[in-house]
Amino acid sequence: MDLRAEIVSVGTELLLGQIVDTDAAYLARVLSQYGVSVYRRVTIGDNHDRLLAVLREAVEQNDVVFTIGGLGPTMDDISRETLAEAMGDTLHRDEGIADGLRQFFAKRGMSVLESNLRQAYVPDHGRAIDNPNGTAPGVLIEMGGKTGIALPGPPNEFVPMVDNQIIPWLAARTGGRTIRSRVLRVCGMGESVAEDRLKDLMASEAPTVAPYAKTGEVHLRVTARESSAEAADALIEPMVARIIERLGDHVYAFDDETLEAAVVKLLTAHGLTLAVCESCTGGLLGSRITDVPGSSAAFLGGAITYTNEAKTDLAGVPPELVAEHGAVSPEVACAMADGVRRRFGADYGIGITGVAGPDGGTAEKPVGLVYIAVADSDRTAADRCLFFGQRRDVRVRATQAALVQLRTRILSTAV
Amino acid sequence: MDLRAEIVSVGTELLLGQIVDTDAAYLARVLSQYGVSVYRRVTIGDNHDRLLAVLREAVEQNDVVFTIGGLGPTMDDISRETLAEAMGDTLHRDEGIADGLRQFFAKRGMSVLESNLRQAYVPDHGRAIDNPNGTAPGVLIEMGGKTGIALPGPPNEFVPMVDNQIIPWLAARTGGRTIRSRVLRVCGMGESVAEDRLKDLMASEAPTVAPYAKTGEVHLRVTARESSAEAADALIEPMVARIIERLGDHVYAFDDETLEAAVVKLLTAHGLTLAVCESCTGGLLGSRITDVPGSSAAFLGGAITYTNEAKTDLAGVPPELVAEHGAVSPEVACAMADGVRRRFGADYGIGITGVAGPDGGTAEKPVGLVYIAVADSDRTAADRCLFFGQRRDVRVRATQAALVQLRTRILSTAV
Repeated sequence: MDLRAEIVSVGTELLLGQIVDTDAAYLARVLSQYGVSVYRRVTIGDNHDRLLAVLREAVEQNDVVFTIGGLGPTMDDISRETLAEAMGDTLHRDEGIADGLRQFFAKRGMSVLESNLRQAYVPDHGRAIDNPNGTAPGVLIEMGGKTGIALPGPPNEFVPMVDNQIIPWLAARTGGRTIRSRVLRVCGMGESVAEDRLKDLMASEAPTVAPYAKTGEVHLRVTARESSAEAADALIEPMVARIIERLGDHVYAFDDETLEAAVVKLLTAHGLTLAVCESCTGGLLGSRITDVPGSSAAFLGGAITYTNEAKTDLAGVPPELVAEHGAVSPEVACAMADGVRRRFGADYGIGITGVAGPDGGTAEKPVGLVYIAVADSDRTAADRCLFFGQRRDVRVRATQAALVQLRTRILSTAV
Repeated sequence: MDLRAEIVSVGTELLLGQIVDTDAAYLARVLSQYGVSVYRRVTIGDNHDRLLAVLREAVEQNDVVFTIGGLGPTMDDISRETLAEAMGDTLHRDEGIADGLRQFFAKRGMSVLESNLRQAYVPDHGRAIDNPNGTAPGVLIEMGGKTGIALPGPPNEFVPMVDNQIIPWLAARTGGRTIRSRVLRVCGMGESVAEDRLKDLMASEAPTVAPYAKTGEVHLRVTARESSAEAADALIEPMVARIIERLGDHVYAFDDETLEAAVVKLLTAHGLTLAVCESCTGGLLGSRITDVPGSSAAFLGGAITYTNEAKTDLAGVPPELVAEHGAVSPEVACAMADGVRRRFGADYGIGITGVAGPDGGTAEKPVGLVYIAVADSDRTAADRCLFFGQRRDVRVRATQAALVQLRTRILSTAV
């Protein structure tokens, strides 16, 4: 059955432009993948009468109406009640959810406020949607052949709820024509080079191949729209194989697997360990690596050496080396990488030292200059990088380059 | 005069979620600054009938209607014609603009296509809006006391047109009436508690006070809409003072200043230094702190101690302590904080140890349990925290809590 849906984003902060509505774009993308038609999206403030008017019209004209935001405990959170009202349903308090809320607050040594208990209300004709990442459950109402779904606004609650609960619901409801896509993640190669090598493949219409430039990497999305997932995959898989043939090891992972996750997987698969010594990135590389669940199997730890003394004390960098070449130099990067490797007894060590800016640059060592070294028991070598952009960009690009460099070393030696 | 406006974003790629609508947020922010009320925003595809229906309703209910996008040369670019139709106006070709287009293409060795000349059409009751960054001029229509404005979609054309042509027009139309706002950033206090303490102030209409929950903090936006910036500030400042009176030191900064920036500023102002020892956050705290330009004045560095050996080797945590209490314990957090403080010769040390998940939790030490310790030369103490959510949330909330705890310690001792 072909479904028609409308997305209603609720929040005065959206109308004032204080927040960019990434949630609505995310949901729209998911709906289009499941062949659900969206003809209109509306953004409306935290005002009962206006929201009710929009929702009544949306319910009348669509099969499914989604609200995003306005499920919190405060007075201006009105989506739950207003969606029920627009659909002609009423709410009642679910004592199980209320108990869960009481326990949640009790665990944290707080008592639940009456306002928090508003989140325990569920529709008479429907159910709550579990929210493992926040206190506000979603709401699903089914009345008169129409479905209303209220989703929380914070992206860290919204996205998992869409992924884990709305997508399965959609898959069951749509069952027909389906869009499938696969993302190939490419590192160590610019977008224009990748595009040049794939020019003929990018002219393909089924499946389509589209490049997206990301920070320090390129994503290639291969998409097919067919009557079944199997039919779509039968188009996608040979195209993926042809792209890998052209780009080789530059394809480091698929879909949502990050570069840090791919590197942790590679290390773990070969029983290898890593330690890092960071100056200008100040812990960002360690943070990216330890963001990967299970990274403790490969990552031993590191030193954040923001001062020269710390470089010597924690990573054994000889003070003479710093005096002679300066803290931002290939020699010091190598000493940091090898020193931290030895200190932690790791198979690989990474050293990063550079000028992140906005101050501290000179003609000889400008803002954006970063030396990145990788050490193993046989060899220590540093790359010189000159990154463009603000402090934050320089730091992210430096950690990205460090991961690419480590990955290249592992592939060329250990594998 | 009080203006009421609606923003209509036009484009199927927006409905499919392939693009996030930053233009609409930008325009909404500008409109709010000039005191123009926006009650609703609509996103609609490149479909004549649906767009016409939305625009007719918008023109009827508002003083000004903006369309964004759909001004290009292709068949599915229909904003110009449909806006004129909705307002009861007609278009005619402006030969000056047509000549400009011909010259533009001739310069590039191309001849102009008939489709490109669609961009030379201007309203009978209005004018073109110059677009120095693209071939599609904007359109301004004035009919029956209403104004319709069609703006191009590409942000590099859209933003300059808003800045250079829409803002002066708004300033003239709104007669200086302006909205100003101030954000108070609040830490160490939940949204519902803050709201509870400010209930009466939040009922205020001039200025308004609105709370926004963020990860581990709350933002309070105080907004006034007056005939001049001075008049608005005269309402805002006393309200800001009253809020600070109620919330005290929980207000850590204003507007865009982050918690890490406020902490770095506090340390630097008092000539104090900091070192960190991170286990489950794996460098994220160091990364947040060193993300602040100039943080090297206060931040000496840290240890990422993902293994027990590293806790002992780099931060001097006695192995017996780990054996007796486990790595995730207040005792080990305190030893990490004080050990790293001594190692770096810093005034303050922070130690973080916990279970970030998704695995590794037990009944006694569940996922989300984090001990955070702050040490100075007089005292070392740990907080027990139980965070909710995914690995990433637990880690971010742990660093947030660490910064709050450090800030509280500094305020209670050094200041």
